[in-house]
Amino acid sequence: MAKNVYKFGNGQAEGRADMRNLLGGKGANLAEMNLIGVPVPPGFTITTDVCTVYTKEGRDAALKLISDEVKDAVAHIEELTGTKFGDKNNPCLVSVRSGARASMPGMMDTILNLGLNDMAVEGMSKKTGNNRFGWDSYRRFIQMYGDVVMDLKPKNKEDIDPFEEIIEAMKEEKGIEQDTEFTIDDLKVLVLRFKEAIKKETGKEFPTDPWEQLWGAITAVFDSWMNDRAILYRRLNNIPEEWGTAVNVQAMVFGNMGDNSATGVAFTRDAATGENLFNGEYLINAQGEDVVAGTRTPQQITKEGSLRWAKLQGISEEERASKYPSLEESMPAAYKELDETQHKLEQHYHDMQDLEFTIQEGKLWLLQTRNGKRTGAAMVTIAMDMLKAGEIDEETAILRLEPNKLDELLHPIFDTKALEQATVIAKGLPASPGAATGQVVFFADEAEKFENSVLVRIETSPEDLEGMNVARGILTARGGMTSHAAVVARGMGKCCVSGTGGIKIDYKTRSFVANGKVYKEGDWISLNGTTGEVYDGKVVTKTPDLSGDFGYIMELSDKYTRMHVRTNADTPKDAQVARNFGAQGIGLCRTEHMFFEGERIKAMREMILASDVEGRKKGLDKLLPYQREDFEGIFEAMAGYGVTVRLLDPPLHEFVPHQQATQKELAKEMGVDIDVIRSKVAELEEFNPMLGHRGCRLGNTYPEITEMQARAIIEAAMNLKAKGIDARPEIMVPLVGTLKELKLQADLINETAEKVFQEKGDRIDYKVGTMIEVPRAALTAAEIAEVAEFFSFGTNDLTQMTFGYSRDDAGKFLPIYIKKGILKHDPFQVLDQEGVGQLVDMATKRGRGTNPKLKVGICGEHGGEPSSVEFCNSVGLDYVSCSPYRVPIARLAAAQANLKQGKA
Amino acid sequence: MAKNVYKFGNGQAEGRADMRNLLGGKGANLAEMNLIGVPVPPGFTITTDVCTVYTKEGRDAALKLISDEVKDAVAHIEELTGTKFGDKNNPCLVSVRSGARASMPGMMDTILNLGLNDMAVEGMSKKTGNNRFGWDSYRRFIQMYGDVVMDLKPKNKEDIDPFEEIIEAMKEEKGIEQDTEFTIDDLKVLVLRFKEAIKKETGKEFPTDPWEQLWGAITAVFDSWMNDRAILYRRLNNIPEEWGTAVNVQAMVFGNMGDNSATGVAFTRDAATGENLFNGEYLINAQGEDVVAGTRTPQQITKEGSLRWAKLQGISEEERASKYPSLEESMPAAYKELDETQHKLEQHYHDMQDLEFTIQEGKLWLLQTRNGKRTGAAMVTIAMDMLKAGEIDEETAILRLEPNKLDELLHPIFDTKALEQATVIAKGLPASPGAATGQVVFFADEAEKFENSVLVRIETSPEDLEGMNVARGILTARGGMTSHAAVVARGMGKCCVSGTGGIKIDYKTRSFVANGKVYKEGDWISLNGTTGEVYDGKVVTKTPDLSGDFGYIMELSDKYTRMHVRTNADTPKDAQVARNFGAQGIGLCRTEHMFFEGERIKAMREMILASDVEGRKKGLDKLLPYQREDFEGIFEAMAGYGVTVRLLDPPLHEFVPHQQATQKELAKEMGVDIDVIRSKVAELEEFNPMLGHRGCRLGNTYPEITEMQARAIIEAAMNLKAKGIDARPEIMVPLVGTLKELKLQADLINETAEKVFQEKGDRIDYKVGTMIEVPRAALTAAEIAEVAEFFSFGTNDLTQMTFGYSRDDAGKFLPIYIKKGILKHDPFQVLDQEGVGQLVDMATKRGRGTNPKLKVGICGEHGGEPSSVEFCNSVGLDYVSCSPYRVPIARLAAAQANLKQGKA
Repeated sequence: MAKNVYKFGNGQAEGRADMRNLLGGKGANLAEMNLIGVPVPPGFTITTDVCTVYTKEGRDAALKLISDEVKDAVAHIEELTGTKFGDKNNPCLVSVRSGARASMPGMMDTILNLGLNDMAVEGMSKKTGNNRFGWDSYRRFIQMYGDVVMDLKPKNKEDIDPFEEIIEAMKEEKGIEQDTEFTIDDLKVLVLRFKEAIKKETGKEFPTDPWEQLWGAITAVFDSWMNDRAILYRRLNNIPEEWGTAVNVQAMVFGNMGDNSATGVAFTRDAATGENLFNGEYLINAQGEDVVAGTRTPQQITKEGSLRWAKLQGISEEERASKYPSLEESMPAAYKELDETQHKLEQHYHDMQDLEFTIQEGKLWLLQTRNGKRTGAAMVTIAMDMLKAGEIDEETAILRLEPNKLDELLHPIFDTKALEQATVIAKGLPASPGAATGQVVFFADEAEKFENSVLVRIETSPEDLEGMNVARGILTARGGMTSHAAVVARGMGKCCVSGTGGIKIDYKTRSFVANGKVYKEGDWISLNGTTGEVYDGKVVTKTPDLSGDFGYIMELSDKYTRMHVRTNADTPKDAQVARNFGAQGIGLCRTEHMFFEGERIKAMREMILASDVEGRKKGLDKLLPYQREDFEGIFEAMAGYGVTVRLLDPPLHEFVPHQQATQKELAKEMGVDIDVIRSKVAELEEFNPMLGHRGCRLGNTYPEITEMQARAIIEAAMNLKAKGIDARPEIMVPLVGTLKELKLQADLINETAEKVFQEKGDRIDYKVGTMIEVPRAALTAAEIAEVAEFFSFGTNDLTQMTFGYSRDDAGKFLPIYIKKGILKHDPFQVLDQEGVGQLVDMATKRGRGTNPKLKVGICGEHGGEPSSVEFCNSVGLDYVSCSPYRVPIARLAAAQANLKQGKA
Repeated sequence: MAKNVYKFGNGQAEGRADMRNLLGGKGANLAEMNLIGVPVPPGFTITTDVCTVYTKEGRDAALKLISDEVKDAVAHIEELTGTKFGDKNNPCLVSVRSGARASMPGMMDTILNLGLNDMAVEGMSKKTGNNRFGWDSYRRFIQMYGDVVMDLKPKNKEDIDPFEEIIEAMKEEKGIEQDTEFTIDDLKVLVLRFKEAIKKETGKEFPTDPWEQLWGAITAVFDSWMNDRAILYRRLNNIPEEWGTAVNVQAMVFGNMGDNSATGVAFTRDAATGENLFNGEYLINAQGEDVVAGTRTPQQITKEGSLRWAKLQGISEEERASKYPSLEESMPAAYKELDETQHKLEQHYHDMQDLEFTIQEGKLWLLQTRNGKRTGAAMVTIAMDMLKAGEIDEETAILRLEPNKLDELLHPIFDTKALEQATVIAKGLPASPGAATGQVVFFADEAEKFENSVLVRIETSPEDLEGMNVARGILTARGGMTSHAAVVARGMGKCCVSGTGGIKIDYKTRSFVANGKVYKEGDWISLNGTTGEVYDGKVVTKTPDLSGDFGYIMELSDKYTRMHVRTNADTPKDAQVARNFGAQGIGLCRTEHMFFEGERIKAMREMILASDVEGRKKGLDKLLPYQREDFEGIFEAMAGYGVTVRLLDPPLHEFVPHQQATQKELAKEMGVDIDVIRSKVAELEEFNPMLGHRGCRLGNTYPEITEMQARAIIEAAMNLKAKGIDARPEIMVPLVGTLKELKLQADLINETAEKVFQEKGDRIDYKVGTMIEVPRAALTAAEIAEVAEFFSFGTNDLTQMTFGYSRDDAGKFLPIYIKKGILKHDPFQVLDQEGVGQLVDMATKRGRGTNPKLKVGICGEHGGEPSSVEFCNSVGLDYVSCSPYRVPIARLAAAQANLKQGKA
């Protein structure tokens, strides 16, 4: 029979760090810490397999499966702690926490002080000699359990918590302001009222049997795996539902047993910058939740950190030393042990660690260690520092980086000059670096109201996740560097300023006051996540400088990669940006964008609206010099590398004027009646333009268009050759579905090229190939490769046609499909390997079967998405092509893919 | 080295009937006729392979290949006929004709009297003792050769032939009216003027060297394989370009050597009705082209035929016997030999033969025999008669039938009562049976002007082919039963009345006069192709009775078939029609059409425009009883057979009102502002509705719709069960692309069914399956078959998505694609076996791999197209489903497919 419960404690453990899939990250590390001699409260972990049973077969099946093992494991805790579950003298109290394979901060619910009831509270008081502490713990437990397990929550977002409501009422009755002013009897009354409220609102009694409490809490953890927040987080982070969560049950330790107790979180290096500096926050006489919740201002762990913090906050050394001393100063012994432990842990795990600890009456306990979340910049710095220090090797360094996070390093920061003129209206903590400009919103579910929004909250909670993802930046009034807002924003690579005490938020009027000015919903503000400054209005941004470490990573990536990375670029400027980011060629140069500027669109319209070939040729003759000039610029920017130019693709309807005024103007210019224009525009209209007269269907029905474009490409390349510049055109025929479609276009291109060669008395090399974006092209790739010299997968259209989804219309059902789990990802973002990928694989194999020299790449937007890049590597593509800013991401992803594949 | 030229003559031949692919139909049969003792002028056949060389490698390569063999073969003709090529005493004259593998009437060009020049014409005159005959033949040859080989043709459709222009001018000069009045000197002048015209217009001399003439003629035959008419005919008749044509060169025989000479065409049975009656037409003292061209009124071959003809034409027996005697009467000996020959040929070929013969000075020569074209009715009658007579077996009878031609038997004929009241305005020959009603057009290229057109021509020519195909019927003023119009119309199964002398056509004014009334372009007339009557205005049509032979064929088909045939029907009436045609179930019952009538559309709109689930449910509750009632009717009509009901498929936008007035009305009825309606309608609009929010995407986003439909289906079936009627619902989820899409819908259907079963206290059997119409569904069929109990290929949408063609928009490029040979067929008419078929095959195999019991069918329009049905059989489908009128065609095609596959 499989083992479902793994015990640990007292330097021993049944699990190990590498059992992460089974025990979750937290459980595996709790076991591992025991094994390497780090002090951890004893406990046990229920495996993720049990969660799967729970989800599939239900509560009874799951609980039956673990019943005996859990009883044995509780006995193990009792034995090691010398306590007894529900005992009126020495009760055994436990925490129950979730812990999935991947870290999901704030997503899963936690229960503390489980085991307390009317009898045990007395035992606790007796044992600690602190009656008040016992009753306060008890009311906290009921409050937490009532919320999380018994689901007594506020009904509307503006409502306050039902338990807080009771507390507020009690304060009013008593005429007091602080929780700490409650007497023991007040707390006893609160316990009663809490229980009554639970009974009244949920119809159920608060369970007094610790075992019943325990089963309820375990069930709640499993349930929370399927709650909306968890589902959303998994979706945003590509975590499969099948993984499930483990449940960790551990003996309680108390950071709130007086001034020789404390609790805190710490990072072995700086999670924002990557600096090799132990740092973190703690609170004296507090429980773990107090630190994360951000309701009290936490203190720094190291003295150095504390000094820096005070400076940032403008707090005097006197005030700091008296009111906010560091742990290093206030509890030097515990600090020393913590510092030794953090070194031990980082050396053991070879990565930056995020720790949770509690000091109970001077004794240090580690409650959790995990690889710390970090910003993109910190990710790069830490990996490179560790590589340089010889702590990890090159392959490990590459594989440890999250390609998508490089994005944070590439995007605009504030323009320094603009910043100098900007008015600072408030200052908070630099919780997550970057720059953000947007319009103020106050509720997460309204973040979509504006194209660029900044979410302004007193504090954030897991419910706000989706809105945080939508917003450009997050500003909170409360909470430290480890508050929910800060942790989540860093994970998202989103700019965040937290703990900004200087702003006063009023949700009711949807406004906040800062620097004496009222900011209403919709007003513009800007955030600097790197300094913590908040500015009035919009502040101009600029391109960031790329640090040396970044360059080093790119170098390493190229060393370990097999695939090339090209870019999708339609202008010399974009081509240059991409080249600076390391693009080796252009995988997709769309020609249609070139037709929209000034005189070009006129000539284009003249061509489209002509009634015969001669008329079209006249328009095309005017377009030729523009096209040639465009291509010269792009070829020059990519000199020495292949440039894949796609022939005209979109339906002609996109180019003609739809407004009456513009039609009138055009008619006048062309010397025809407006009705001629109007009827031609109407004629071009299509029911399903995506599946209409476009792509090579244009080139095959109006060959003169292809002829003009081929001529412009070849002439441009030859003009550059004459100047000694190495242009390498690759002419791509779009939307091919049959061999003959490509053949006719290729013949025309080759004939045109020959003509140009004869005219110029010279030759150049060029290639002719095709997009594979119609399912039929993939199915008949063996034939198409008879003519094509290269394939480029246009996975945007291929996804549209393989799924039968119009990208422009899918917004009506895709979000619902993802919510219902019909699709794991938006297939336009993450390549559907099972369906679309099957066609990619098939076409590559079949195409190469005919033409072993066939060059194969991808130029859909998937070319810059790491999991899709990995797939492209696995099916043997020669290159991926993506937008300029995704090039570094693709380079890293390609290297990782190659390394992973080598290992597999 | 391969043999390229096959000689025949004098009872011997190098070829055989079964060498059709190499020698073409005509060449193979010329050889075969020699072998079975039928008198055939000696000659030789150049193979189709040479045509392929000609097309691919050009004229020089082809002529070089055959040069020696042709010289040898000409010597063979000279030897057998005792003549000499170009000889001034006894010249060898030959005909040059094309002959492809499949018969292509009127499509390929023919040259007669080749070998004549200024010297040979004297020899011919000497030999025949007829100077006038020699010079008349010479001018005919120059005229024909000048037209066909040297391409001197009228430039515009209203122009007259340049040679005819010269003849007319000559007649005017001489003050004569008939060709026959020309003197020998006149003919000599004509020859000179013809040659001058050729030199002037083409810049080339008319060739005097017979060898040069021969090579030119052979080249012209090969060229004509690629002319527009040939390409069009091949397209209409699915003949591959690769087949090529053979060239037949034969010694000339003359039907125009005086009154003991004649030429004619004959059918061993009646090509219109199938009656076992030798029949045909001939002309005394004429060349073959005179009969086909319809410029003289031909006479009947048999006396019986002649009597019938005279009666139809209202000609007295006296006039008939003197002016139009039958061959049987005028040349009894030659007739006897012809009759014996036709019997011999039919018995040899076991099929109705279409003969061409010439009688030269009393001696019979056969110039051609081939399986005769026939109407659908004749096809059925002849095959069944031959089967009953034991001349062919059942399999041969089935395989001989062309499934598409059954269509002619199924379509409406004139309603007898309407016919009684109709005014006959003219009477012609019943050239091709059936009924047609349409608006008059006079030029073939304008036949598309009206939805229903009747093409009215003095006579038709191959140039008119496309227009004839578009028109509902064809009416000609001239030409017999074997005129171009008649032969082509029968081949097309199109109603045709030919040789209608009573109408006077004026192309210039675009009108004709009949019965004293002027009919202009656009006026309505009706044709009865079975009687030859022409009616004024529209005449009501009715469904035909199906003859006993038809039923027998269906019985035979079922005996030899493997696949079932179902129908696509949305109403009880259609279901009944299809059942009468032998449909075994419904393969596609679309539910959306049911929503448009009266109150239903109101409820439907209420549902669509509702703002929440509750609102939608209210609308759906109103629709439920209608749907249930519809299903009851359909299930009852198909009792005992499976009925596949497709859940709602089209985008909701199709149901809402788009006119302001209707929107206003609806707003009033629903008690909302018109803006509410307007904005909802706008919201539903899509860029690409084909790829939008439709199919199961509706059912998965609005599950309440699926629930209502599932309930209506199950309740209907149970209501019928209660009445003792065997309803077998199969619920089909449309547009599935992922397993989970189907799974969620199937779960909902099953839950709903269970609810209904509990409500009614009974159960029924039903199936849940899916359309395979999205490429991804085919690719992931192995998974989808985990849930689906059946697959039905929706090849309309599958074709749209696999090719990326919108059926509604493809009209802009599909015709050009077919013309350019990019596509062989319209893929919406003929299944694309290479691409779409690959997905059908793949999905069937993968689906059955998961679920061996999976039932698989096709319900796209391809289900009634014979070549597609054959494909479906080859990949192992269980059934095809098609529109009611295609059911008999599909049944026959399915049997043929099975027989062919068994033989393969």
